Amino acid sequence: MVQQEIASALKLSSTGPEKLLDLLQQLQPYDLSEILREMEERERIGLISNLPVAEAAEALEYLEPELQYQILNHLHDSAASPLLKQMSSDTVVDMLLAVHPLQAEKMLRLLPEDYRIKINNLMTYPEYTAGSLMTVDYISARAHWSGEQTLRHIRKVGLEAEIISYIYVTSIRGELVGIVSLKEIILASPHTRLSEIATTDVISVPAEMEQEEVAGILARYSFYALPVVDNRNRLIGIITYDDVVEVIQEEATEDFQKLGGSQPLSEPYFKTSIWSLFSKRIIWLLVLFIGGAYTANVLEMFQSAVDKVVALSFFIPLLIGTGGNTGSQIVTTLVRALGVGEVKFKDVFRVIHKELITGVLLGLSLGLVAYVRAILMGVEINIGYVVAISALFIVLWASVVSAVLPLLLHRLKIDPAVVSGPLITTLVDGTGLIIYFTIARMILHI
Amino acid sequence: MVQQEIASALKLSSTGPEKLLDLLQQLQPYDLSEILREMEERERIGLISNLPVAEAAEALEYLEPELQYQILNHLHDSAASPLLKQMSSDTVVDMLLAVHPLQAEKMLRLLPEDYRIKINNLMTYPEYTAGSLMTVDYISARAHWSGEQTLRHIRKVGLEAEIISYIYVTSIRGELVGIVSLKEIILASPHTRLSEIATTDVISVPAEMEQEEVAGILARYSFYALPVVDNRNRLIGIITYDDVVEVIQEEATEDFQKLGGSQPLSEPYFKTSIWSLFSKRIIWLLVLFIGGAYTANVLEMFQSAVDKVVALSFFIPLLIGTGGNTGSQIVTTLVRALGVGEVKFKDVFRVIHKELITGVLLGLSLGLVAYVRAILMGVEINIGYVVAISALFIVLWASVVSAVLPLLLHRLKIDPAVVSGPLITTLVDGTGLIIYFTIARMILHI
Repeated sequence: MVQQEIASALKLSSTGPEKLLDLLQQLQPYDLSEILREMEERERIGLISNLPVAEAAEALEYLEPELQYQILNHLHDSAASPLLKQMSSDTVVDMLLAVHPLQAEKMLRLLPEDYRIKINNLMTYPEYTAGSLMTVDYISARAHWSGEQTLRHIRKVGLEAEIISYIYVTSIRGELVGIVSLKEIILASPHTRLSEIATTDVISVPAEMEQEEVAGILARYSFYALPVVDNRNRLIGIITYDDVVEVIQEEATEDFQKLGGSQPLSEPYFKTSIWSLFSKRIIWLLVLFIGGAYTANVLEMFQSAVDKVVALSFFIPLLIGTGGNTGSQIVTTLVRALGVGEVKFKDVFRVIHKELITGVLLGLSLGLVAYVRAILMGVEINIGYVVAISALFIVLWASVVSAVLPLLLHRLKIDPAVVSGPLITTLVDGTGLIIYFTIARMILHI
Repeated sequence: MVQQEIASALKLSSTGPEKLLDLLQQLQPYDLSEILREMEERERIGLISNLPVAEAAEALEYLEPELQYQILNHLHDSAASPLLKQMSSDTVVDMLLAVHPLQAEKMLRLLPEDYRIKINNLMTYPEYTAGSLMTVDYISARAHWSGEQTLRHIRKVGLEAEIISYIYVTSIRGELVGIVSLKEIILASPHTRLSEIATTDVISVPAEMEQEEVAGILARYSFYALPVVDNRNRLIGIITYDDVVEVIQEEATEDFQKLGGSQPLSEPYFKTSIWSLFSKRIIWLLVLFIGGAYTANVLEMFQSAVDKVVALSFFIPLLIGTGGNTGSQIVTTLVRALGVGEVKFKDVFRVIHKELITGVLLGLSLGLVAYVRAILMGVEINIGYVVAISALFIVLWASVVSAVLPLLLHRLKIDPAVVSGPLITTLVDGTGLIIYFTIARMILHI
């Protein structure tokens, strides 16, 4: 990899340091951050202090909070202060929240007072809310300003703004009254007032909104950024799309883990300790084990039937497995459809209708295959009938349960992703056995 | 909802049409598109032809390709042509690909020749590649242009560009040589040449790259847009961030459905016909049914053991269910971690090591609970031992299989998401039975 080559070149003295610095500056900030991560601490500090502030700050953005703090802490205050100012405020907040309050306090002193107050404010928003995602590095302007005047303003303050593609138009009291894109300002004549070109129907979100909802809005409207307001409609920050991509990925990862029957992990896989992996998993495994333990009682109950027709027991894993598989297909599809808003509770009858018809088709197909399978094993024709009809009814039963449960939980404001594949499988295991043996008793008269 | 109120107000004549049009123009394009969708065809055409071109085109962007075509087709050519020109080229391509080639041909004639050639070109890129996502509505400039000159150029061509936040710097032969943000142009003095401020280390993607990979790059670097080049490094289009959000959502949805043991649906849930739902699901259900059918043979094989100790059969669903649940937890976590790049094949031993230790802890806990459960049912103490030890080994076995399989498939360039929860469950069902009865024979000497 280029990064490693550069990293090793850094240790050799054959390449002149100026030449190397030149090379490094040509890199993308993300790639630069990868190099920083590989370096030893002393080299890292050396490199950062030799880079222009803008480049150094951008590369820092991609590092983990702990590493950011370590670097800034080892720099001279005179070098750390401009870097800290240049970094986007949401990154600074995440970093300060990750270290000890006293360390955060000390670092905050490097910032000018007005910015320090803003950062302190941002630090009060709870995790997973709009407030915790937002940055204060936006550009706002007054409605009566001309395009030219606004461009001058942008030249002055733009260097520290995270985005300048959109300018937020505010009233004297700081209320958000409009939004105008840089494109619109440039395309309009220089003397046009912002009030003439700004869109006044601005979509904004309150700081308390949950991040998942924020992500949904931004994705639906294809916005680049979303303004955040307080309860008096005063602009307090913006959320940019890259934070939302992260949220979307995180939430999807959580849903995957839940659907697999585990509590979601709060860290990436390799950062999760074995103990934490164990405790996230054991909860549901125990619930499912204890919940599924009644299958043993069901089998004990029907033991006389099994005693009379031993072959019945051969098909137990196959039949309940098929029920579980059908259910698993349906819940994953529905939980995801609920998650992205394709399906709502009011659709419950449409969903049941759709799943029942599909279930009949699936049940008939699998019933036929089950019949052939049973006959091939050389069991009585009657047992073949029992297995086939049970397959049909177990698939139908699994379909209804899996169609109703996620929608019902969603309605009750419980995350439908708790209806995991394993939960449905366990539910259908026991009930499937009852269906199977009831049909067997009726057909075989045992 | 506001939309419905407006839609019904449109039918009443109490509100003057000018007033209403005014109201509608204040709406976000996305919300306007929702209203269009609810309207009847005649009203829809009426509304579109009364809106300014820019607003109408933006609202059209959010509609389904078929509806876009229907509207444009019913408009006069003189009204449809500017709309078509204003819409972003990737949307136009998607629409034209969704209708009959002859209809597409006819619609293309509404466009000026050079743009028509571009669109025709875009239509040749296969689905799910960078080429199919890109738009040609970008702004490019020459390296020797000054900032002022570039701004003049933007004023001239910017209206039809999808983004103007980034300007792509090209050579005379059209090769991509740099990128400069509008912010940098505005912040620099008007006479600065682009070559002085442009970044020359541009990250671009080839048109053939898979959309999943493109999304990954754009998200990793937090870019606003990503340039697409042909095999001679000539700029042929750009992909903007909003397409990436869509791709990420789509790919996650597909992985959900695969992990649930179904072929991924190509349409949203309610748009998927019952027949298509059936055919996507039956494939895996049949594979799993036939693959799992050997459980019947395993049980037949061990029938003498069951005959001797009937109580053994009571714990079959519980034990194999627990194995399946453990496996399901692991595969969903790993498939997702592979998908987002947290885990790679070279980590296989770290993964096995981690899962084995976690498996020992889980197995011991569940074994203990299984023992208590068995004893509570009043079976012999020896059977309690069998059930407990089997629980431990089945959990361990499920852990190893679920840790290795997804990584192995990923290595073989097969989508690891085919290792669904149901697949692991089915795999562990039969092998779990063998483990159980082997342990039973050893301990109970039967």
